[in-house]
Amino acid sequence: MSFVYLDNSATTKPCKQSIDVLNQTLIEDWGNPSSLHTLGIKAEKMMNEARQKTAKLMGCMEKEVYFTSGGTEANNIAIQGAAKARKRLGNKIITTEIEHASVYETVKNLEKEGFEIVTLKPQNGEITARMFEDAIDKNTILVSMMMVNNETGAYLPIQAIKKIIQKKEAPALFHCDAVQAFGKMEIKPNRLGIDLMTVSGHKIHAPKGIGALYISKDARVLPLYGGGEQEKHIRPGTESVPLICALGAACEAVGNIKEHFNNVLALKNKLVEMLSGIDEVVINSPDDALPYVFNISVMGIKSETMLHYLASNNVYVSSGSACSKGKKSRTLQQLGFPDEKVDTALRISFCRDNTMEDIEIFVKALKCGINSLQRIKK
Amino acid sequence: MSFVYLDNSATTKPCKQSIDVLNQTLIEDWGNPSSLHTLGIKAEKMMNEARQKTAKLMGCMEKEVYFTSGGTEANNIAIQGAAKARKRLGNKIITTEIEHASVYETVKNLEKEGFEIVTLKPQNGEITARMFEDAIDKNTILVSMMMVNNETGAYLPIQAIKKIIQKKEAPALFHCDAVQAFGKMEIKPNRLGIDLMTVSGHKIHAPKGIGALYISKDARVLPLYGGGEQEKHIRPGTESVPLICALGAACEAVGNIKEHFNNVLALKNKLVEMLSGIDEVVINSPDDALPYVFNISVMGIKSETMLHYLASNNVYVSSGSACSKGKKSRTLQQLGFPDEKVDTALRISFCRDNTMEDIEIFVKALKCGINSLQRIKK
Repeated sequence: MSFVYLDNSATTKPCKQSIDVLNQTLIEDWGNPSSLHTLGIKAEKMMNEARQKTAKLMGCMEKEVYFTSGGTEANNIAIQGAAKARKRLGNKIITTEIEHASVYETVKNLEKEGFEIVTLKPQNGEITARMFEDAIDKNTILVSMMMVNNETGAYLPIQAIKKIIQKKEAPALFHCDAVQAFGKMEIKPNRLGIDLMTVSGHKIHAPKGIGALYISKDARVLPLYGGGEQEKHIRPGTESVPLICALGAACEAVGNIKEHFNNVLALKNKLVEMLSGIDEVVINSPDDALPYVFNISVMGIKSETMLHYLASNNVYVSSGSACSKGKKSRTLQQLGFPDEKVDTALRISFCRDNTMEDIEIFVKALKCGINSLQRIKK
Repeated sequence: MSFVYLDNSATTKPCKQSIDVLNQTLIEDWGNPSSLHTLGIKAEKMMNEARQKTAKLMGCMEKEVYFTSGGTEANNIAIQGAAKARKRLGNKIITTEIEHASVYETVKNLEKEGFEIVTLKPQNGEITARMFEDAIDKNTILVSMMMVNNETGAYLPIQAIKKIIQKKEAPALFHCDAVQAFGKMEIKPNRLGIDLMTVSGHKIHAPKGIGALYISKDARVLPLYGGGEQEKHIRPGTESVPLICALGAACEAVGNIKEHFNNVLALKNKLVEMLSGIDEVVINSPDDALPYVFNISVMGIKSETMLHYLASNNVYVSSGSACSKGKKSRTLQQLGFPDEKVDTALRISFCRDNTMEDIEIFVKALKCGINSLQRIKK
């Protein structure tokens, strides 16, 4: 069945390179990397190669890459692990109101353990460096902020954080959830002042079930799970060699980030142009957002209704974060959007494989949807 | 390259059924199960089918199956999650000295949080129900014991636990790490009085990176990670549909447990018979152990030396638990074996695909190994 897929921020189609190496590890190199015999050694070697490739795309050293079962686990290890490691140095953790559930809920849970939690609220639709200036103090042990918002594509002021932490002499680590940015822009965590960084495989054409946490060679977190020595004790359990190798291959397959960026930007610009003629559509994403994530509202038509209409025409988008299935978007509410926009929001999210034709099919389906769904209402 | 693989307790070769469905989910049904469109719905449906198949082999209801990234995560959620949920009811946690690292270390970590930990020590090479009679009291909130030991194949007295808990009026849940037993014997956790039970995919011919936790419908644990609503909040994060479906297929592919058991028992009996003529070999496993796991010592030849000799002849066994790579076996030490046996131990572990020819090749290689390695020493 042929369809137009514009829900790449929810998940992406696994790429051929990723599938090929995965099959190799299942059919040929299926040893346990902890085994001391030939089959184990081969598995370990393949895992090391994957770590090299992943480190390259993460912009860090191999030894700073810790494989996890996905973005959610990486966010939890970063946040809970940093809180555990630094609780003697202070008590305050700062994050924002527009984080992914795996950051937001994790930080909220720490409140019950006695940590002071500050969740910064956007003003005029924006999180600013100034807010961190006001919030970070000598008692602050962790700042967690995403690199790019998963619902609007908005960039957050990550480059400012490390300097503020230093200026305030705070004993804080800076954790950045880079899931939506990974593979879509050049990232050098060290240069950006990031101590801990989360990435996910299935947003960059690797299978679901694999992610990684960058832990700067100068930072330390405590593990959350007890077990074997895998991933230097930070993430015990037999490594998922198949998924780790698939992630490595997907990282390598990303190729020319700038070229993909420009292509996707052209798609987004085309979409903006085509939507400008439709009265019911308003754009929720900032103009200068990461072009891969684009949020609109179709005034008068509930997200779910439009989403189902589009799906029945084989065009797939989403109403917001997939992990908050069906719920009203906390992010859009916090960004100050009124209910009539929040309830009618659609997220269109691209990958490097999307084409101008996809945009045309989407806009055509959207227009038909507006016409027929408005007719029903009347 | 052809080889004889007798290290199935470390990991197993993924089966065809598992690989086939995995490829289907990567190539066709790669949607995010939380997505509301057709692609997401299809992924969710496949995941539900896999849950059915997994529940069948786990001997429980579908709603009692929680997918995890493996045995280590399942053990951690069970133990830490139960401790969190029950800390108001008591303070004491009981386990044994011969558990897998992911149970043993996890329980040890809870000691630092103020729990009273009792780790029962084998007497005369055995953990007995009587030890639990003496240890369980009204302050006990959790008992964690494996079903079958991962190094010797010994059965543990799991059937006694629930009755003792009830008799002592203890507010305790019973967690059982069934990783080595799963798929190798009929398991009905409810009938066995088990509240929480861990299984792992890669020990039953599914890929590495997937496992499951049984949580009885009458038991409750608290989640360790913050995030989305996946797995009823107990294990948030986008589900690894590919690995979940692969686990389901591997469970279904197990087939006739009794028949496999009898075949493997015949292999083990043949091996015992053939080894009886070798003076240097002593058997460490109890006679009535699960035949899939068989432990011997080759007196006078260090485990690693023999392991490498065998590996160079394309025969793969291990020196103990793969997760404790290269370390002296805690289990054998605790079982009371003297150093000369612990240092020379080999674990031979079977799967349903092993043959009499494998046994013959192994014994031949072992004999050659003893001859040539003893010659070097002289």
